[in-house]
Amino acid sequence: MNVLEAIQTRRAAKAFDPHHRIPEAQLREILRAGALAPTAFNIQHNRLLVVEDPEKRRALREVSWNQPQVTDASALIVVCADVQAWQKNPARYWRNTPEEVQKTLVGAIQTYYTGRTQAQRDEALRSTGMAAMNLMLAAKSLGYDSCPMDGFDFEAVAEIIRLPEDHLISMFVAIGRNTEAPKPRSGPLEDHESVLIDAFPRDDGN
Amino acid sequence: MNVLEAIQTRRAAKAFDPHHRIPEAQLREILRAGALAPTAFNIQHNRLLVVEDPEKRRALREVSWNQPQVTDASALIVVCADVQAWQKNPARYWRNTPEEVQKTLVGAIQTYYTGRTQAQRDEALRSTGMAAMNLMLAAKSLGYDSCPMDGFDFEAVAEIIRLPEDHLISMFVAIGRNTEAPKPRSGPLEDHESVLIDAFPRDDGN
Repeated sequence: MNVLEAIQTRRAAKAFDPHHRIPEAQLREILRAGALAPTAFNIQHNRLLVVEDPEKRRALREVSWNQPQVTDASALIVVCADVQAWQKNPARYWRNTPEEVQKTLVGAIQTYYTGRTQAQRDEALRSTGMAAMNLMLAAKSLGYDSCPMDGFDFEAVAEIIRLPEDHLISMFVAIGRNTEAPKPRSGPLEDHESVLIDAFPRDDGN
Repeated sequence: MNVLEAIQTRRAAKAFDPHHRIPEAQLREILRAGALAPTAFNIQHNRLLVVEDPEKRRALREVSWNQPQVTDASALIVVCADVQAWQKNPARYWRNTPEEVQKTLVGAIQTYYTGRTQAQRDEALRSTGMAAMNLMLAAKSLGYDSCPMDGFDFEAVAEIIRLPEDHLISMFVAIGRNTEAPKPRSGPLEDHESVLIDAFPRDDGN
């Protein structure tokens, strides 16, 4: 499917066919698309956790306002990040480059993240957002629908998936076959509110 | 261009042709793709600021480690978010739905965000990540390359673009014609590190 068509027709699916399964090879392709999203300094801190176990799915649904997508989607991906990946042997993220390049990059990584807790967290959210978008568009291109979700008890989910303390959870991406036609968009903003040129308006509106 | 091909061939461009221009209609299509990325509760808090003024571009480059993409890209988009959009007349994000639905959604929005400063910020980073990915893939599908950037002085950029105090800057997306062939990937992780099934390993590795 064409990129622009996928972007335009992707809508959040709320009612998945619970009996539908995604062939393993396609799921791998979708996950691969997620892994190909960019990360700053190529630190690749995104972690894609696929919840296959039906009991775990039920447990997650209980802590997700009982939203049916959590159990009914063909695939449920918890999009996480290792917030400390930048300091876990970062030379390996550049191992295919000359040693000189590796050294420069590792230095830049240390300079950028050391002691900057909020910047580390921001980076993880930004990167997981990009990866999640790739997952949803790859799914769309293979004929599936998806639902991005962050309405859940993050701490309870962390316990269920044994999230390491230095990781975070960004969102769920549920993927499957939608059983409902998409509704009209609920209230898109006008372009002039979401797109700006050169600068935000002055306080006096000019 | 096919979605999976766009995802697989998208690479961060570092050397843009400074003389190349993107036709206005295509730029609008790219920005539209950004605006179609999902946001929680449809709050649509992403703000896409296109920097056209060459002087502003030069000023931005100065506070971006002098990276040439900032001035040389055909389009430079500062991807921002209105962190407080959730409380700015949120019923309008659901104005095409029955009043009952609007009321329920506005209530859910208030419950989710009120007093949760970190969750508000996380949401903005997550959403801008998704929007940025759409921008980059839409650009790719139209034959352009892109560079996601967050190596800059955020406060200095905020001043240059007159960022309102209740907004944040997430990243730049530079778009244009790449003049260099992409290098091999610098060090992709093995799948077993970035994809997990059901749960993260226990401390004992099982």
